[in-house]
Amino acid sequence: MIRRKKISVIGGGFTGATTALMVAQKELGDVVLVDIPQAENPTKGKALDMFEASPVQGFDANITGTSSYEDTKDSDLVIITAGIARKPGMSRDDLVNTNAKVMRSVTEQIVKYSPNCIILVLTNPVDAMSYEVFRTSGFPKERVIGQSGVLDTARFRSFVAAELNVSVEDVTGFVLGGHGDDMVPLVRYSYAGGIPLEKLIPQDRLDAIVERTRKGGGEIVNLLGNGSAYYAPAAALTQMAEAILKDKKRILPSIAYLEGEYGYNDLYLGVPTVLGGSGIERVIELELTDEEKKELDKSADSVRKVMQVLNA
Amino acid sequence: MIRRKKISVIGGGFTGATTALMVAQKELGDVVLVDIPQAENPTKGKALDMFEASPVQGFDANITGTSSYEDTKDSDLVIITAGIARKPGMSRDDLVNTNAKVMRSVTEQIVKYSPNCIILVLTNPVDAMSYEVFRTSGFPKERVIGQSGVLDTARFRSFVAAELNVSVEDVTGFVLGGHGDDMVPLVRYSYAGGIPLEKLIPQDRLDAIVERTRKGGGEIVNLLGNGSAYYAPAAALTQMAEAILKDKKRILPSIAYLEGEYGYNDLYLGVPTVLGGSGIERVIELELTDEEKKELDKSADSVRKVMQVLNA
Amino acid sequence: MIRRKKISVIGGGFTGATTALMVAQKELGDVVLVDIPQAENPTKGKALDMFEASPVQGFDANITGTSSYEDTKDSDLVIITAGIARKPGMSRDDLVNTNAKVMRSVTEQIVKYSPNCIILVLTNPVDAMSYEVFRTSGFPKERVIGQSGVLDTARFRSFVAAELNVSVEDVTGFVLGGHGDDMVPLVRYSYAGGIPLEKLIPQDRLDAIVERTRKGGGEIVNLLGNGSAYYAPAAALTQMAEAILKDKKRILPSIAYLEGEYGYNDLYLGVPTVLGGSGIERVIELELTDEEKKELDKSADSVRKVMQVLNA
Amino acid sequence: MIRRKKISVIGGGFTGATTALMVAQKELGDVVLVDIPQAENPTKGKALDMFEASPVQGFDANITGTSSYEDTKDSDLVIITAGIARKPGMSRDDLVNTNAKVMRSVTEQIVKYSPNCIILVLTNPVDAMSYEVFRTSGFPKERVIGQSGVLDTARFRSFVAAELNVSVEDVTGFVLGGHGDDMVPLVRYSYAGGIPLEKLIPQDRLDAIVERTRKGGGEIVNLLGNGSAYYAPAAALTQMAEAILKDKKRILPSIAYLEGEYGYNDLYLGVPTVLGGSGIERVIELELTDEEKKELDKSADSVRKVMQVLNA
Repeated sequence: MIRRKKISVIGGGFTGATTALMVAQKELGDVVLVDIPQAENPTKGKALDMFEASPVQGFDANITGTSSYEDTKDSDLVIITAGIARKPGMSRDDLVNTNAKVMRSVTEQIVKYSPNCIILVLTNPVDAMSYEVFRTSGFPKERVIGQSGVLDTARFRSFVAAELNVSVEDVTGFVLGGHGDDMVPLVRYSYAGGIPLEKLIPQDRLDAIVERTRKGGGEIVNLLGNGSAYYAPAAALTQMAEAILKDKKRILPSIAYLEGEYGYNDLYLGVPTVLGGSGIERVIELELTDEEKKELDKSADSVRKVMQVLNA
Repeated sequence: MIRRKKISVIGGGFTGATTALMVAQKELGDVVLVDIPQAENPTKGKALDMFEASPVQGFDANITGTSSYEDTKDSDLVIITAGIARKPGMSRDDLVNTNAKVMRSVTEQIVKYSPNCIILVLTNPVDAMSYEVFRTSGFPKERVIGQSGVLDTARFRSFVAAELNVSVEDVTGFVLGGHGDDMVPLVRYSYAGGIPLEKLIPQDRLDAIVERTRKGGGEIVNLLGNGSAYYAPAAALTQMAEAILKDKKRILPSIAYLEGEYGYNDLYLGVPTVLGGSGIERVIELELTDEEKKELDKSADSVRKVMQVLNA
Repeated sequence: MIRRKKISVIGGGFTGATTALMVAQKELGDVVLVDIPQAENPTKGKALDMFEASPVQGFDANITGTSSYEDTKDSDLVIITAGIARKPGMSRDDLVNTNAKVMRSVTEQIVKYSPNCIILVLTNPVDAMSYEVFRTSGFPKERVIGQSGVLDTARFRSFVAAELNVSVEDVTGFVLGGHGDDMVPLVRYSYAGGIPLEKLIPQDRLDAIVERTRKGGGEIVNLLGNGSAYYAPAAALTQMAEAILKDKKRILPSIAYLEGEYGYNDLYLGVPTVLGGSGIERVIELELTDEEKKELDKSADSVRKVMQVLNA
Repeated sequence: MIRRKKISVIGGGFTGATTALMVAQKELGDVVLVDIPQAENPTKGKALDMFEASPVQGFDANITGTSSYEDTKDSDLVIITAGIARKPGMSRDDLVNTNAKVMRSVTEQIVKYSPNCIILVLTNPVDAMSYEVFRTSGFPKERVIGQSGVLDTARFRSFVAAELNVSVEDVTGFVLGGHGDDMVPLVRYSYAGGIPLEKLIPQDRLDAIVERTRKGGGEIVNLLGNGSAYYAPAAALTQMAEAILKDKKRILPSIAYLEGEYGYNDLYLGVPTVLGGSGIERVIELELTDEEKKELDKSADSVRKVMQVLNA
């Protein structure tokens, strides 16, 4: 007997809801959107609205909203988007501690009902939050994965495609390390139609695109005025979800737990990985130039500093 | 030389933005999302966020946010989602007059920059608003079309599919007349796998589903607490847009301008139509039972009463 | 750990190969195309050619050609297209006996390597061949399913769509009973945009379309001159495969084993079914008019006569 | 008024028919499949069989078979697959002259009925045949395009994906020059997940994959025993067709007419191009190493030798 896959999305805000929609559009499985009891009705409303879209969008997926983790029972994949964004006046440490608490409580519930699932983490600071989910869950490392590089390269790719007036399908990007400011872009591994970008775009324009990518989240925050990006983050999560649920063995950047790779230990950091039915099936190691390694060290340090807040 | 189609979506709120996303996902063309100057930055932010999703979602579409109608120049299709929702304490007449004013100002701008486009209207009360757009535009009737039946039947279909535990793809629904309360459901023309629903669902359950459909918009409003449905409305608009832009000649319910069909004149009302590259290519007339005709008359009266507000 | 589904297609001729392609295009799983040892190389060639198409078509599926059933091990779904077509001068009984022998030998191999799979049968005469596979396999009835009605209605729908100049998506058809000449079309359950076809197409045209559908296989045979239809049959098999592998619970006509339904026993006959992850999850029973029941009896008789050949 | 695009495919053999199917599946437009009068009925049969598949595959496209070029009138895109394959005992010159004659007669008909179309050429030897179509048509160079590199890289990508056990979506390839033996693979511009293949695959394995790609057409011919590849060639043509018809501005290798690019003049040769609504919108020039340039010169010489046969 073949049963439909089940995906739970924790956090029913814009990103969680948009992720639920995109996962359902691809018929990756049934979707459970979870939020806190106070948000139960809006969460149910969004899920119902999406389900009502399914006949015309042509996908079969039960989509339900809930505040009860019991409804997530036997999920194949759980995507965590819950947590708060940093507000004006809030210290980084407060953000870290608040979200870490959310991760712990959420993860306990996830593990209780879906002990065999794979977990994708979006909540920021994503490296530290992935670590927190990892150690709370007791899961093997390949089943706790953070998202950051797919989004960063998506932004980079869209800027490059616009710059060159070519299809987004033909542009690739490559990043290592942390998210946003801590991102280590490897432009030499980024191409349009297979051609290294350095040969197609003047260096100053390329630098500007890298810098814009680094600040990509902030650009959207500034434009929206009230809130942060959700379409591209949801698309990024959906691509990783598809790679896992269809066992596609995609080569995608993940926030992965490292045990010696790239010279780091006991750390979640962005590296190229193969994503398939077991989660992270491989970490791909690259030789780095001295400068790249130095930047990556800086990124790792930055993650460790956040970790210290957690362990304080 | 083949150029990409261009679709402008007026109104950058949840429905407009979700419509822009779904239209882009299907690569129906480039998308311009338009809102008022005060909302220009958030509109640009949403458009940019969507564009940044395109590399991972795998679609090519320029998506831009703007408050300037000049950017809509030479659109093939314009979708109007702008307008206000009725707020507590607001009379129906105030709603009608406010939105009619929006329709007039929006339509003047649309016509100025895209004199050959087709216009899809979502703004409520949709029958009267479609009429207002029609007479402001001076367009031939087949190029001004209101949406309501695709959404109403989408909701109906999703409820039936859940009731029977079957694929949403195999359930169809059929409505005539106005939107929501004024909807005239033709259950005898509604099926699961081609089998009339009366043979599959007990009458009281079927009545309950019809009633739930009628109140479908309100159900979402009540759950959300703050705001109204946008996923299913956006999906409905996108399906009509696809039928037109790909000249698919889909048989879909539209709010169409009637000149004698079903015995009505000079009225926008929901009827079955063929949607293709010319807009409404045909209105399909059905024999109605006396009771159905009576209900449709009531629906038409209701539309006319709103029209009187407009003409007062 | 999530593993990709596995689908084996028995018979590497045009229909089998096209089915393999369509199943892979939808990323339903990895595909094994099986033919006899003498055809092993061409089968490998077709499979390789398809796999080489996958990067540009954008699907991930291992596609392999083989003559060894060992390679079908642990299939989730097996589709049987093997067997011969009736050649000039060949009696019906010879056809039946030859293909029944093929079914038995093929089924033994399938069961040996995939004892939990679901089997879809295309080989003609499909009612009798489904029965033969059923009793050879020892599988429960819901896991041995014949294809005929999806193809017959696909043809009917395409003819109606062309007649009315409307989208094929909005036309439905409905058949009971056997394949081709034995088909019992229920035109009263066939619609365009939900409107009964009798209201849209003059009776004589409708009769002609029904007759053309009945002879639909022959029309293609006559045009091709050498060979029979494969695109539409492969599409039909693929739709049934998708319903099962994605547990979509589609309402589709299947050749199903009847135990009392419609008054028949121990017989494979075309009836409306719900197809999902368990195979045939439900047979839907309809009230028939006397005339329809008479026609269906005739169809059942015709199947039984073929069965007698088998049992002789 | 928006009209559906129209694509004519010249040559109703396996490649032409499969291309027609794939183009229709993507709803790129209506499709006319053209063959010689003697093959008119089989061509009609294949087209009808495909059209009958459309309701279940869910695409709207009129697909017609014909031997009359009048039916191709006002095509937006014409794809030429007609011509013969080299048979045992046939000299290369005979092949060239026979197919050139086919190109001339076919092109005259195309131009007569669709003076504004874009032409895609598959017929071998494709460089010379593209040239012949170009000069017969009198079309500007950007509207006559040969296919070879998309197919060659598709094969290369599939071999690499299998070697590394990763998704075909994440592997890219890069070729210049002629088709098959004359292909100049630029492995340094070929990647998996953006990582240069040299870093992932030992050199001897990589050499073997390049060599297998070079002989990729022959490998399929040998396996099939009777006939040549058609799935991957059809997929390649379809991707180029989609780039043009949706104005996607994809960066794809094309056989393009060169006027100075890469140091060649008045020659059709494989180079990286941007394909969009105008056909070849740009030729992208790369710096080559001395060895690459030498190989490309050899490839160009080989094309010129074939051209001399034509001009003799």
